[in-house]
Amino acid sequence: MKSVLSYDYTNMMAEVIGEHGIAGNELTSVNTRAREIHAKIEAARASGALGFTRLPYEVDAAKELSGLASELVENFDHFVVVGIGGSDLGARAIHTALTPGIYSHLLPRPKGGMRVSFIGGNTDPRELHDFLATADLTRTVFYVVSKSGDTIEPMSVFLYVRKLVIDAVGEKAHRRHFVMATDKKKGTMRTIVDREGYQSVIIPDDVGGRFSVLTSVGLLPAAAMGIDLSRLLAGAAAMDERIKTSSNLRENPALMYATLQYLADTTRGQHISILMPYAANLKEFGFWYRQLWAESLGKRLNSQGTVVHRGPTPVAALGATDQHSQIQLYNEGPYDKIITFIRVEKFEHDAVVPSAYPDLEGVSYLAGHSFNEIINIEQAATALALTQNGRVNGTITVPALTPEALGELFYFFEMAVVYLAEYYDINAFDQPGVEAGKEAMYALLGRRGFEEHRKRIEERLNQKNEYIV
Amino acid sequence: MKSVLSYDYTNMMAEVIGEHGIAGNELTSVNTRAREIHAKIEAARASGALGFTRLPYEVDAAKELSGLASELVENFDHFVVVGIGGSDLGARAIHTALTPGIYSHLLPRPKGGMRVSFIGGNTDPRELHDFLATADLTRTVFYVVSKSGDTIEPMSVFLYVRKLVIDAVGEKAHRRHFVMATDKKKGTMRTIVDREGYQSVIIPDDVGGRFSVLTSVGLLPAAAMGIDLSRLLAGAAAMDERIKTSSNLRENPALMYATLQYLADTTRGQHISILMPYAANLKEFGFWYRQLWAESLGKRLNSQGTVVHRGPTPVAALGATDQHSQIQLYNEGPYDKIITFIRVEKFEHDAVVPSAYPDLEGVSYLAGHSFNEIINIEQAATALALTQNGRVNGTITVPALTPEALGELFYFFEMAVVYLAEYYDINAFDQPGVEAGKEAMYALLGRRGFEEHRKRIEERLNQKNEYIV
Repeated sequence: MKSVLSYDYTNMMAEVIGEHGIAGNELTSVNTRAREIHAKIEAARASGALGFTRLPYEVDAAKELSGLASELVENFDHFVVVGIGGSDLGARAIHTALTPGIYSHLLPRPKGGMRVSFIGGNTDPRELHDFLATADLTRTVFYVVSKSGDTIEPMSVFLYVRKLVIDAVGEKAHRRHFVMATDKKKGTMRTIVDREGYQSVIIPDDVGGRFSVLTSVGLLPAAAMGIDLSRLLAGAAAMDERIKTSSNLRENPALMYATLQYLADTTRGQHISILMPYAANLKEFGFWYRQLWAESLGKRLNSQGTVVHRGPTPVAALGATDQHSQIQLYNEGPYDKIITFIRVEKFEHDAVVPSAYPDLEGVSYLAGHSFNEIINIEQAATALALTQNGRVNGTITVPALTPEALGELFYFFEMAVVYLAEYYDINAFDQPGVEAGKEAMYALLGRRGFEEHRKRIEERLNQKNEYIV
Repeated sequence: MKSVLSYDYTNMMAEVIGEHGIAGNELTSVNTRAREIHAKIEAARASGALGFTRLPYEVDAAKELSGLASELVENFDHFVVVGIGGSDLGARAIHTALTPGIYSHLLPRPKGGMRVSFIGGNTDPRELHDFLATADLTRTVFYVVSKSGDTIEPMSVFLYVRKLVIDAVGEKAHRRHFVMATDKKKGTMRTIVDREGYQSVIIPDDVGGRFSVLTSVGLLPAAAMGIDLSRLLAGAAAMDERIKTSSNLRENPALMYATLQYLADTTRGQHISILMPYAANLKEFGFWYRQLWAESLGKRLNSQGTVVHRGPTPVAALGATDQHSQIQLYNEGPYDKIITFIRVEKFEHDAVVPSAYPDLEGVSYLAGHSFNEIINIEQAATALALTQNGRVNGTITVPALTPEALGELFYFFEMAVVYLAEYYDINAFDQPGVEAGKEAMYALLGRRGFEEHRKRIEERLNQKNEYIV
């Protein structure tokens, strides 16, 4: 298939939007750099260093996952993803984009799929309670996703529901209620899988959590929803074909996107990157994007080890909803934002506003317009208003929100963030800044080896507090 | 009742956190200004100018709304809020905080309440379709919230579902399936109500959308959920008593909060305001906060008419979830953020992690800890790590997520934003920056009087586009 995604950057340009936009000659002057970055990334790919770029082509692995999902669909009614961050945000994005989302729990099972829920993205006892009050454990399979098996949130939830499932169906039968996604060889979860004999699927060790949506992490849940995985992969592959074959900014949309984001941040101080899809189904996609951006780009050090404290702040907005919440700020506040819309030309369903009060000017003009038309007019009108106010904005368009289009969107942003990290000269693939918090947690929860750390923390927490009101 | 909310600003202070914090003498030097602002706001309140400050005490109006809700609960199974922005974000926050949220649709009716849903915060045809596929219109009452009756999104949805309800139950009977919240005297919706004879409740004309959660806008849905409105109001009143009686920063938490936010933005460039509750139930509260902050503070002009382009960017984060998504950026990225946690000491339900693999160091230490304990340790550990990294952060604590505590939280942020607008010398209550977009929408949808505007827009949209990839 051919890529169907387009990126319109008209309103990013100074020629259209004025001083806060990027001038044509600035784009030209960065051309060489863009070509170098493209070459560097393609060389890295050729050397096998970019595991995630392989995924669009792993059709056989996807077939195996579909097969496993079919077995599960036969035996269970409810598939529950237990994961956090990179272990569930991709699957959540797929669920919201390609199924009726929260409404799916009230609807009959989809063809070839079952009900899919998410838990373990938190350790909130009330959420856990409410979830369990609606789950029939005898008909539920839990998909626990943790590469290491050391992640506090999903592992706490796993240990708890494991006990409940054992109580419900017995020690022996409980095993078939769990499928684990984890490392091939090492880690706590691998040990648990081997010891208990749980079914398991592999998370490739060269693909980090935030780039893992097209591994088993995102694909097994997608298959459990009844989604044809080959279509998701075909979309990602179509985008990849476009990206890898062109180092020309005007042909490679991810490279153009990264270049404009970089220039807008570093030359204009536009360091808040807002993604604003005009489609309720892309709401969770925004949260997937938020992790990808924040963890890949928010870095203390550059590749030379120099302290740089880099990183634009990603914001997930939603059209038309946020017109009545954030647009006042976007139109009138500081010139520190880039807004990217995602526009869906044709929605899966549509309806027309009927005529009701032809004499009331406040509503009569709505009659005869379809909702598909209205939401797209809202997007166009918002882009127009921002442009008139000199606010940079761009629009990614897909013809329809199909599995192929979603695959393209995932892959587009993954490659864009990799390019962007090259511009910033930072490592897109590590996350050293989460360690300090993890160690404090281990200490406070009494994990072995953190006793000294704990003492220091407790002293600090027990200090008399004068700054409280 | 007495206020139970506390605000701990220890980690906002330079004495604790270093150069990126606010020094004690900076706080002292702003003391006079803080007192002036407090006096100005109290004078405005006394003159009747701040409508929303009256709401905590309108106990009789709340009783009437509870009475209306009781009648509806007797006659219907499903209460659907049709609103957008200030017309639904408050009710959504209440629904998520005080009911099982999305799970409530799968659970038996709450005592004295019914199922509550939200639609019309968008004009997404697929979301509308999925919602309707799960709704029994003969048992559903729609609560259409629009002060003017001119708001495109809820009015489109209203016109559409009105037709469906007429088709389902007939022209005459359809009327009892709608309750409208609108202006007392004027506007398109008032005309429709008078003509059709729909039931209606009043949105006070001196309370703007983002300050309206304690009017009929938020309270009728809350009552339909089975929530005791007097408890919500009592919490807001308890916070108001604390606020109005003290101009002392160290006694008035909203004034301290506003002061620190202002100083952090204007003296340290910390202009991204992150609200990060450690409670899944406060997720939607974050979206309510986001509108309050963005629309109240994002302004082009100050009170003198000078162009200032003000406004911190509010971000809704969620703990522990976002530890695996945003914390890398917060710990290592630019020093441009203020993080405020909301901590709930005691959750409504709890569970303990059972012992399962005592020999596996990666999980054994979790055994015996309750989820309530774990989520609060995660909050403390995250605050500690941010503090070690010199990142300003503060913590709002409530003992439990009761209706009273939620009432306090709403009112705390409303007053804080009013104080903050005074510091910035801008008008907290207008939103001129949404007009341009609205006019473009009217033009593109063919509303009378916008014909010229439409021609200009269409010329622009039809220009050949060279900036597309």
